[in-house]
Amino acid sequence: MSSQTFQAVNPVDGQPFGKEYSEGTHGEVTAAISALSASATAFAALSLSDRANLLEKIASELDSARADLVKIAELETGIPQARLNGEVTRTMIQLQLFAAQVRTGAHLNAVIDLADADYKPAPRPDMRKMNLPIGPVAVFGASNFPFAFSTIGGDSASALAAGCPVIVKAHPSHPGVSELTFQAVQRALKSCGISGDVFAIVQGRNPEITHWLALAEEICAVGFTGSAGVGKLLVKLCNSRQIPIPVYAEMGSLNPVFVTAAAMTERGVSIAEMLFDSAVLGAGQFCTKPGLIFIGADHEPFVATIRSKMESVGSQPLLNKGILDRYVESVKSLNQIEGVESITGSVSVEGFIAQPTFFVMDYAHFKTHPEFAEEHFGPTTVIVKCSEEDFEEIIAQSQGQLTATLHIGAAEPKAALLQKLATIAGRVILNGAPTGVSVTAAQSHGGPWPSSSTHTTSVGTDAVFRFMRPVTFQGFADDLLPPALQQANPEKIERVVNGVRRI
Amino acid sequence: MSSQTFQAVNPVDGQPFGKEYSEGTHGEVTAAISALSASATAFAALSLSDRANLLEKIASELDSARADLVKIAELETGIPQARLNGEVTRTMIQLQLFAAQVRTGAHLNAVIDLADADYKPAPRPDMRKMNLPIGPVAVFGASNFPFAFSTIGGDSASALAAGCPVIVKAHPSHPGVSELTFQAVQRALKSCGISGDVFAIVQGRNPEITHWLALAEEICAVGFTGSAGVGKLLVKLCNSRQIPIPVYAEMGSLNPVFVTAAAMTERGVSIAEMLFDSAVLGAGQFCTKPGLIFIGADHEPFVATIRSKMESVGSQPLLNKGILDRYVESVKSLNQIEGVESITGSVSVEGFIAQPTFFVMDYAHFKTHPEFAEEHFGPTTVIVKCSEEDFEEIIAQSQGQLTATLHIGAAEPKAALLQKLATIAGRVILNGAPTGVSVTAAQSHGGPWPSSSTHTTSVGTDAVFRFMRPVTFQGFADDLLPPALQQANPEKIERVVNGVRRI
Repeated sequence: MSSQTFQAVNPVDGQPFGKEYSEGTHGEVTAAISALSASATAFAALSLSDRANLLEKIASELDSARADLVKIAELETGIPQARLNGEVTRTMIQLQLFAAQVRTGAHLNAVIDLADADYKPAPRPDMRKMNLPIGPVAVFGASNFPFAFSTIGGDSASALAAGCPVIVKAHPSHPGVSELTFQAVQRALKSCGISGDVFAIVQGRNPEITHWLALAEEICAVGFTGSAGVGKLLVKLCNSRQIPIPVYAEMGSLNPVFVTAAAMTERGVSIAEMLFDSAVLGAGQFCTKPGLIFIGADHEPFVATIRSKMESVGSQPLLNKGILDRYVESVKSLNQIEGVESITGSVSVEGFIAQPTFFVMDYAHFKTHPEFAEEHFGPTTVIVKCSEEDFEEIIAQSQGQLTATLHIGAAEPKAALLQKLATIAGRVILNGAPTGVSVTAAQSHGGPWPSSSTHTTSVGTDAVFRFMRPVTFQGFADDLLPPALQQANPEKIERVVNGVRRI
Repeated sequence: MSSQTFQAVNPVDGQPFGKEYSEGTHGEVTAAISALSASATAFAALSLSDRANLLEKIASELDSARADLVKIAELETGIPQARLNGEVTRTMIQLQLFAAQVRTGAHLNAVIDLADADYKPAPRPDMRKMNLPIGPVAVFGASNFPFAFSTIGGDSASALAAGCPVIVKAHPSHPGVSELTFQAVQRALKSCGISGDVFAIVQGRNPEITHWLALAEEICAVGFTGSAGVGKLLVKLCNSRQIPIPVYAEMGSLNPVFVTAAAMTERGVSIAEMLFDSAVLGAGQFCTKPGLIFIGADHEPFVATIRSKMESVGSQPLLNKGILDRYVESVKSLNQIEGVESITGSVSVEGFIAQPTFFVMDYAHFKTHPEFAEEHFGPTTVIVKCSEEDFEEIIAQSQGQLTATLHIGAAEPKAALLQKLATIAGRVILNGAPTGVSVTAAQSHGGPWPSSSTHTTSVGTDAVFRFMRPVTFQGFADDLLPPALQQANPEKIERVVNGVRRI
């Protein structure tokens, strides 16, 4: 065990508190990964129902530990209890959705093409394909969702659902939540009779840990939610390996919102209220925060609403000192640019407290100051006064985004504009707010680079496919096939047989 | 137009012949890619039936040009007419299969989750997800399949099926086939009323062309079939971009075959005959050539069969001088290693003619000479005498493979061994030969690195998914949705609505 330790820091007062957590050493990480790797074959071979039961058991263990989890999470993150409780529930639901998917076998994508002597251009042997787990996965949790995108969040849950052992790099902003969550998962594994080796955690603030995990030979993929800086570092590290591995990095986004003149006329104030609430939700620390709002009409009514909402909003703690420092610096630097209105409260540096800041400017100004088109994590949003004719140019100049939103008037025929938004984002929202990422099959949480490193979703049931790869079994005797591909379909899963989907 | 030109070379006599082809210039490549990009939106918006019709029309244009295509292909590749004719048919079938898939809309993976006020943990808005084309694709054809993996081979066909414009780097070993194929595609586009800009070709031997294509800002993905050297270069180039793009590279493999003692006893001679034929098929220039054969028993009967088959096999031209030179050098260098039996004919250097070479050695010898575990393109195969107990160690040491094959005796319970083979390969074959890649839904042609750069297949209908990415449309009015997601399902495609698959 390392002699280096660290404590959690309470963002409300900026003070370290509680338990000393040991920094994971290279030896500990190596040993944990070896154990992960040694357990991979047995874990991959679990029956569908055993795997589904495990995911459900983890959910119920989280529920049992809910009071303790929420208590320590509140101290470590400054997030209000109500939201933390909702996030625990969401994390349970994520696990339960993957459990339901695993029970149906849908994640296996089983396809059977029977032998066909008349197949063209050559006779076809019996061909049966299914997804197999790719092997041990390293997950890097995010600071802003201590449950849903952390230790047993979507990345870990989908990797376990795929059949991959997982090692989590606990986010150093919430070591206590991570430890309690890890223990809940271990209790679930034990009660299901599965080796605890399939799920490991490493604590620490040492940046070398990231390198150890990304470069470990046995690690087959990385799941990450966080900053573009660390995400790009992980991509670079994993591409530099002798055997490169995929990095599924969700690196945040500006989530541009476009408001037409008709929308402003019809409901400008309510759109402003909706987007204000969306922007300051979670102190603006959501990856789907609306960071850019383009108003294709007079923006004064919109801005007036923002000003008035600002008066009522309280200050909120940011998640950690790094985020606060970068936020304060960004706001300071952006405030020095002339010709920009800044709507904000006072920024305090006691604890990690900050107030939201909206910047308001003309399109000409926006175009000449690219720093406004960069992500500034925390409660900053840029409002740009432009005309609807500018929307296409803005979209063409935009980098990849998790979401893009359009507000239009009743029955405005804006299908072409919406199609263009689909070219820059993973999710296009009509007349809504980008925050609120529904955990559902139709969710696509991931967009073009740099919002994500791949064309996959990290939220919703399709996230499981990131950690599987297809393997074809050709000319097999039935009893040598994996159960999912056997003729009798013993697990009663959905399969496509000679082009027809059936159970 | 460049002043640099080159001719095709006939591999049978090693002489250049026929037309002078202009080396594509940077300006031409840039202009073609700009045109590709400008045509992308309209091409993506084609209806499913228009896109399917195009793919079918390309197939029929290939059929109409078949005589000319086969004639020039024979001159440029030295491949016999019968195989070339079969390959034209296969290439047509690939296009027709993608057309059928496009008609059903299965490649869109349409998922609809209706608004649900009771959804947990928060009300769900109307969420509708489908795959969209990722944009212009650069395809690098292979020399060894002048039709099926070349100009309008699987990569191009699947990219067009996805809705992506394509620029092909024609393989300089068959510029004439590439040009005629390009013209056939252009006729199909014209007859379907689609801009010819969506399909471009660049000829040349200048290695810079690869860099121009991989680094062009408008290119969104690369499809490649060929050597590990060029495949890895493409991966490196595309990762170095400001916006990295996916490279779907199929880089070949050794395709290990394992033969148990029981299999040898029951049918050793017929297995040897089957694997010999598989190894020398296409002069050993298939990416699924069995390059390593491990015999877990006395290998003399097997080797005796190889010796006797060798007497009857004729010499075959290799595809080009580069392949021949590397083949001759490999064989020469491997022959200098002591304790290795070499079964071969004489290697001629008139034209690009070569005879197959089988190397035979003990497992101890194989282990101490890693050069035998590398891919040597052309008709070389290594036979290793070992025991069945060694199989697990061999598999554990193996790099990623396109295929892995096991020959067992009747009712041998080798399920665990087959499972292990599935960890190193994209396709596992029981009691068969690795060559013969059926174009079917259950095909997985792609395996762990370095056989492929991603966990995807380049053969079969799933290849289309490489060139699409999911986008969610949230809270849309029905008439603003793409047709595939509209409530009335005007294209009658298969969709999953609230978890239930239906049309």
